[in-house]
Amino acid sequence: MSDLNVPLTPLRFLGRAAEVHPGKRAVIDGDRTWTYAQFADHTQQMARALRASGVRAGDAVAFLGANSAELLTAHYAVPLLGAALVAVNSRLSPEEVSYICKHSSAVLVLGDGHLLEQLSGTDLAGVRERIEIPAQDGSSRQAGGTVPFTDFLARAAGDDTQYQWEVDDEDRVIAINYTSGTTGRPKGVMYSHRGAYLNALGEVYHQGFAADSRYLWTLPMFHCNGWCTTWAVTAASALHVCLRAVRGETMWKILDEEEITHMCGAPTVLTTLASAPQAHRLEHPLTIVTAGAPPTPTVISRIRELGAHLLHVYGLTETYGPYAVCEPQPSWATDLDSEQQASLLARQGVGMLTSERLRVVRGEPSPDGTLIDVSPNGSEMGELVMRGNSVMKGYLGDPDGTADAFRGGWFHSGDLGVMHPDGYVQILDRAKDVIISGGENISTIEVEQALASHPAVFGVAVVGTPDPKWGERPMAFIVTDGTEISEAELLAHVRSKIASYKVPDRIEFRTQLPTTSTGKIRKSVLRDNAGDRVGP
Amino acid sequence: MSDLNVPLTPLRFLGRAAEVHPGKRAVIDGDRTWTYAQFADHTQQMARALRASGVRAGDAVAFLGANSAELLTAHYAVPLLGAALVAVNSRLSPEEVSYICKHSSAVLVLGDGHLLEQLSGTDLAGVRERIEIPAQDGSSRQAGGTVPFTDFLARAAGDDTQYQWEVDDEDRVIAINYTSGTTGRPKGVMYSHRGAYLNALGEVYHQGFAADSRYLWTLPMFHCNGWCTTWAVTAASALHVCLRAVRGETMWKILDEEEITHMCGAPTVLTTLASAPQAHRLEHPLTIVTAGAPPTPTVISRIRELGAHLLHVYGLTETYGPYAVCEPQPSWATDLDSEQQASLLARQGVGMLTSERLRVVRGEPSPDGTLIDVSPNGSEMGELVMRGNSVMKGYLGDPDGTADAFRGGWFHSGDLGVMHPDGYVQILDRAKDVIISGGENISTIEVEQALASHPAVFGVAVVGTPDPKWGERPMAFIVTDGTEISEAELLAHVRSKIASYKVPDRIEFRTQLPTTSTGKIRKSVLRDNAGDRVGP
Repeated sequence: MSDLNVPLTPLRFLGRAAEVHPGKRAVIDGDRTWTYAQFADHTQQMARALRASGVRAGDAVAFLGANSAELLTAHYAVPLLGAALVAVNSRLSPEEVSYICKHSSAVLVLGDGHLLEQLSGTDLAGVRERIEIPAQDGSSRQAGGTVPFTDFLARAAGDDTQYQWEVDDEDRVIAINYTSGTTGRPKGVMYSHRGAYLNALGEVYHQGFAADSRYLWTLPMFHCNGWCTTWAVTAASALHVCLRAVRGETMWKILDEEEITHMCGAPTVLTTLASAPQAHRLEHPLTIVTAGAPPTPTVISRIRELGAHLLHVYGLTETYGPYAVCEPQPSWATDLDSEQQASLLARQGVGMLTSERLRVVRGEPSPDGTLIDVSPNGSEMGELVMRGNSVMKGYLGDPDGTADAFRGGWFHSGDLGVMHPDGYVQILDRAKDVIISGGENISTIEVEQALASHPAVFGVAVVGTPDPKWGERPMAFIVTDGTEISEAELLAHVRSKIASYKVPDRIEFRTQLPTTSTGKIRKSVLRDNAGDRVGP
Repeated sequence: MSDLNVPLTPLRFLGRAAEVHPGKRAVIDGDRTWTYAQFADHTQQMARALRASGVRAGDAVAFLGANSAELLTAHYAVPLLGAALVAVNSRLSPEEVSYICKHSSAVLVLGDGHLLEQLSGTDLAGVRERIEIPAQDGSSRQAGGTVPFTDFLARAAGDDTQYQWEVDDEDRVIAINYTSGTTGRPKGVMYSHRGAYLNALGEVYHQGFAADSRYLWTLPMFHCNGWCTTWAVTAASALHVCLRAVRGETMWKILDEEEITHMCGAPTVLTTLASAPQAHRLEHPLTIVTAGAPPTPTVISRIRELGAHLLHVYGLTETYGPYAVCEPQPSWATDLDSEQQASLLARQGVGMLTSERLRVVRGEPSPDGTLIDVSPNGSEMGELVMRGNSVMKGYLGDPDGTADAFRGGWFHSGDLGVMHPDGYVQILDRAKDVIISGGENISTIEVEQALASHPAVFGVAVVGTPDPKWGERPMAFIVTDGTEISEAELLAHVRSKIASYKVPDRIEFRTQLPTTSTGKIRKSVLRDNAGDRVGP
């Protein structure tokens, strides 16, 4: 790097926002509202307190909590010291939190009182202290052994250090995010300042953030640092509105009162939004960005009925959240009916502006190890691979796992899909979810979309169940929108859409589907349920 | 840089646009319209022809011409080979072009026929060939010794190389742009792929480019690579509309027919636009970005009357064009009258999102060489300094000049100004233009703005003239909007605005002011004129 370059870091975004828009609203969390000058001050104050608590460059600091002004602040205060933030999923068990603290060598844990309380008997290895941030109503649990936030801040009393909004090396780790680890132990995904900066700019562009944007935090900040929007919203000097729990009533109240312009979430969040009793047509523009699963035609039409604009993005923890976007083509809105549009919107799309290409490659590379793209024919299945500044530095403490994930020079997602002739990628399945029935691959997502194209279907999941004859057979779990519909009717609908060998053997109706804390459907649970009942 | 990073380059923008929006209109130049697939194809074809003509990584390729599809293509084709583009100001004399070709070690010159013709007797040193691009009507002059563009392209016949939209090193030089050199020889300012990429993203953000933007090329592409919008418009997969000459009639025809959403230019371009007989209120949104001189209240109000949105940016050749932006504050539109707004809009503002801070520093650094900021009081004058990814790699072949420009670690602009309490910078003068009268500094810009606040004043320039008693005294050159006004009336108006010692001794009325090819007023010419007439 040339001597004259300045290392890329999202810290610059907060520094700039505080300089250019000091009096503008930056953060709302319950009754508290901070301007950008105050947000920057709180960040400097937290950085000084972290420093006074012994945090040094290269350390890891864990944060266990719901979305809050403090968690947002930690996204800047921790990196300001050259340390790495470990934003931990607040739904994990004490054992899982313990594993993450140990693995990341966290020296402190900050977090919500009720969550820290659960850790009281847990071995947190090198964690020297548990620091309790106030609840949204300002109250504190003062659970045994935790340090109240005010005491923590008081450690830096008299210190007037102003840290520069800079980093010494743009490849320094800014955050470590743990994979959900549906198989095996969670992995520590390392993000760099450079990657966070570029991904945040990509979010600014694709989501269309500007100084008058108002962002509602329906997405957990602990999920890939809120897809880098913890930094992107600040880049635009826009407003962060914290939301601690995704409830329809609260969302609608804030959407209306603050005239929210942007929010993100898994399809389940959109379902909560659309099915709340308070749901109504919006009187201001709202962009909703979704990921985690392709939005179903029903969800798409419900979101449209609200008057919101829906954007579908795709990525993984390893790609800072979104890497790809289903970028709308001007012709879609003019030339296609809503069913055709919905089927295009369900694709994962193309690499974002700040990403590289999204490729789909064959299982077998060429003899020299070069990855070979599948034919862009919409039918040859391969694995989605990604690379570049939008992809992690690697797995912490796992060079072998990192090397394996990057074989051929590209990160292997474990997602299987096709490349359409227009260059848009569509996922057909997670490698681990694909059903092999009589030697044929069945894409659970294809079957799900066939089911979801029926208007009565609101939520859907298809899994493979053991079958003595075929090896595996598809089984579907359905949540309806309240309409009465029989298994036979639905199966007839599906038969008209896909090949008969892909049609599920059985459909089970549910009132809800099990999801992860980030809104993804837990197919492993459904597989277990199904296995319990049909057993080989 | 980590092994997993991909070098930043604006080449990715064209690669992505061609992948994601192959059928979308990319370039219009006269009767020709290219889609993004065609734009990418033309670029690959030009790159192959350059390669067949002996261009190698590290070479410089000069281009001498007005805005055209070919000049735009060269912004991608030349860097695709790892070579550097030298886009030469088309108004320079053959001797100046010769100097630039020699200094940059250009191996080829591409350009417009009539411009290459003027070079026929000129020593171009290492330039092996002059390649003539077709005129907008497709015609060719075939001037002696030039190679027709079709012959040039034919050299790569049968070659089907597809260059990757990548660069090996993000610090590689992508372009060399020569300063206008009002004093001494022009300097060769080196831009890197990294800087061009980041500055282009900054333009995308601040100008608000999106896929449905339509950009009119009123700004010369040879001016700081069109402020990096040669790359930024492509980043958004938006439409480039080439304009070879800035004429009111043509501009208005294209503005209306193509529903242009964005254009850039010096205030003189805005004046041409606003004073054309075809001028009328726009029926679609248009953002006009101006730089080179602060827009006067008259220009601001005329642009507003057209229904366009005006944005003022600031930078130099050394900063890839714009480094700073007068970012509008929400309160300006609601709390201030139009005169107050105009005075704020005339400021140079704050560093862009992808830039660092814009600082104003004292002439004397601290003993250890650290630069000291002036007080943010709106009155202490200092020099504007900049640094980071938005500032050049250095002057080609001039390490001493580069070191001097970067003393204290920041690039010294030569512009003098103040820092206002709100953090916005305002230029008061070029260091070389400031008038020293009786030991007092007089800012020519301050005097100009006092004159420009009179509604009859359309164009204005103030220069220092030698004075036996005071050393120098200000003199004004005025272009009116057609209203009859006397020197005495105007002087009375100015006296009500600024201190009496700053009031010009004389006003000369002109029908136009001498400008550079980039629309800046040539004060040196006015000083010479004034000197001729008042002589000491």
